[in-house]
Parts: sequence; C-alpha cells; structure tokens
Amino acid sequence: MPVNPNAAIEISAFRWVPQFAQGVVRDLRARWALEEAGLDYRVRLLGQERPPEYLCEQPFDQVPILNEGDVQIFESGAILQYIGEKSEALLPRTEPERIRAIQWTYAALNSVEPAILNLLLIDIFFTGQEWAKLRRPGAEDFVKLKLKRVSDWLGDKSWLEGDRFTIGDLMMVTVFRFLRHTDLVSQFPNLAELVQRGEARPAFQRALSDQLAVYRENEPALQQEGEAA
Amino acid sequence: MPVNPNAAIEISAFRWVPQFAQGVVRDLRARWALEEAGLDYRVRLLGQERPPEYLCEQPFDQVPILNEGDVQIFESGAILQYIGEKSEALLPRTEPERIRAIQWTYAALNSVEPAILNLLLIDIFFTGQEWAKLRRPGAEDFVKLKLKRVSDWLGDKSWLEGDRFTIGDLMMVTVFRFLRHTDLVSQFPNLAELVQRGEARPAFQRALSDQLAVYRENEPALQQEGEAA
Repeated sequence: MPVNPNAAIEISAFRWVPQFAQGVVRDLRARWALEEAGLDYRVRLLGQERPPEYLCEQPFDQVPILNEGDVQIFESGAILQYIGEKSEALLPRTEPERIRAIQWTYAALNSVEPAILNLLLIDIFFTGQEWAKLRRPGAEDFVKLKLKRVSDWLGDKSWLEGDRFTIGDLMMVTVFRFLRHTDLVSQFPNLAELVQRGEARPAFQRALSDQLAVYRENEPALQQEGEAA
Repeated sequence: MPVNPNAAIEISAFRWVPQFAQGVVRDLRARWALEEAGLDYRVRLLGQERPPEYLCEQPFDQVPILNEGDVQIFESGAILQYIGEKSEALLPRTEPERIRAIQWTYAALNSVEPAILNLLLIDIFFTGQEWAKLRRPGAEDFVKLKLKRVSDWLGDKSWLEGDRFTIGDLMMVTVFRFLRHTDLVSQFPNLAELVQRGEARPAFQRALSDQLAVYRENEPALQQEGEAA
C-alpha cells in the first residue's frame, strides 16, 4: 500500500476539487507511477488557496510536486521520469527503448495535451461564452487530428512502443482521460482500448481510488447538501 | 562548424517557411543544443508536403526528428534531453541539478508554451476571425500570468536554476521567442534579459544563422519577386 505517512517520497495534491476535475488532477499521474513502481509515498494536501511559499516549490501554483531528500521537482512529466528512473517497470534501461519512452512522455504533454485541454476549457470553463461557441468546432477538429495521429501510430500494438508499458503510455492515457466528457476517444477504437488497458491496471485503480478518497473525506458541507438535495 | 553532411547525427528541418515562422521553427532548438554540445549534424530538408512514410518517424508530421544509428526520436524536448545526456555543458551530471534541468524543459513545453502558441495562433492564423477577436484579451492575460510566474521565479538569477545554463533555459528562451510579434516579454525586464542572454550565445547565433540560410537558399521565386516589388 504505497500511501504511507512515513514514506520518504512526498507528493502534493488538492484536498478537494469539483466533480469535473475529480479523477483527472495531475497528482493521479504521480500516484499511478508510484504504484506501478511499488514505491511508498505520503501526500501533502493543499486547499484552493495555496500558501505563498508554495510558489518556491511550484512556480505555476499547480500540483503535483515531488519531494524526496534534496530532490524537489514539479511538472508531472519530470516526476514520471524521476520515478521511471527508479523502476524498470516504467522506463526501460536499454537504448533506444529508454529515450523513446521519454519521447512519448513529451509527446503526450506537448503534441497532444494542449489541444485536448483547450477543448476541455471551452466545454467546462468558458461554456456559454460567444467565442467558445464559435471556436468549438475548430477546436474539436484539432483534437480529432491529434487523436488520428496517435491512432495511426498505435495501430494494433498494445502500447505506444509495442508490448511494453512505459511512462509514455501512462502519460498518454491520463491525457486522453481529459476527454471523458466527450465521445471523441471512442471514435478511435484502438485509442479507447489503450485507455481501457491503462485503466484496468491494478496500479491505476489504486491510484484513482486514493485520489478520490481524499476528495470524499474533504467534501465541503455545502456540496454534500447540494448532492443530497 | 556542426553542420556537416557526413555527421552521424541527422535532424529534419523545413526547406522553407513563411516569414512569421523563420527563426522559431523547432529544429532551431536541436541545432542550438548541438552547437552548444559541439556535435556535428546533417540536415534532412522537407517540403510543406512530407512523404507519407515520414509519419513513421514523426507521427505528428512535424520537425525536427533526430536520427543517430538505431536511435530515432522526435519531440524537441526529448531531443534536447538526448543531446544533453551527451554533453555536460547542457545537462548537469549531478542530482538534483540534472532532474531540475529536465523539469524546466517540461515546464517550458507544458506550463508555458501552450498559452503562448494559443496567442500566436490567434494573431497569425486566425486573425480577423470573430472568435479570435473576442478571445484575444483573455488569451493575452493568460500569457501574462505565465510570464509573471516565470519572472517571479527567475528573480535576479542569470538562468532558471542559477548560474548554469541548461536545456531548460534553452527551451524556455525558444518558447518566449514565439512572442516576438508582441511586447509581452519586454513587460518583464528579467525575462527580456533572459532571452537576450540566450540569443547572445555564439551557439544560438550559429544555429539561427544556419536555419535562416536554408530558407534563403530555398526562397520560392514568387516570394522573391514579392519582396523585390
């Protein structure tokens, strides 16, 4: 059971987030990777207002950070790589397999995620705004193009580089999960299967369950009443 | 002189791009890093229509890729890391300095670049469209917030992690250069100085000069007439 208050590795996470964000906040990536690697970690919980000194650890005021001894890092991509370097289960030790896994981590974050987050923002944060209505069709088309590119690459392989699951797959699956409010991924059956394959992993299930448990424990009273109503 | 037709390392680049893209296409990142590392490279030039088999090397149909022996990678972040691992001038060998440099490479690509490219697209590709006019103020505010975060972090340091230039600085400088059509970076004097410091490096100057020389040699005839008129 990796969540352990006495663990050497600490990650940061939010105490609570609204429903649309539950299950996709980026500490899930760190939790999942740590579960795959079998490494214990403790969690530092933060509210929606972070103390100003948190910016010294995470200049963009986001989660997660990872602390272990004198290592203090942010950015989920760098955190996955750091965990991968501790565990061959996530990052091959041989070349070119190692650098190609890293390449897919970057690809998920830079070639795929921006298009997907743009659509998510249009649908969740800017819904109803005139520009968002006008822009949505083009933004969706751009997401479909990105999905098609990954789908064409993946073909009938299990994972992006073949038979072996890596940090690149872990990252890509979490990026695709930002589209769960749409049917876009399901339009590409091999991508839908990739996501299912990732979500079926016991390590993912434990990570998701641990993230959601925190939100349940810290559900604001008003929210609970709203749900009961 | 790193550009060498017999070099073991090959990168891909475009034969020609329109003026607005000259000097910011991402092969510049690979060229700059290779110059810093003192590694020779050859360039494979591609037209605006890539052969279909290029997707087997670069699933998103972009540049650059890097080939060296059995290593074949895409994504400028992974390429910088690969070059950094060959050269301590770009990526420290000690921890936590190494992983923090990698962290800034991810931060530039995932926490900063998407906001900046969104504004660039609004200004260059979608200019005049109704949604772009409505969205621009908010998109600019989001860029300013990202710049403020990096500016607050940087303070009076020379580079993101202090005195030592790394792949993280190289990446961040190239990301900020996507804003050269605006005065946004100059609103943050320490960021403007960071960009100037990067651009003043001889390795950057050689990389930029080599990228622009290719475009000059392959300038379409019509374009040349247009410029002469």
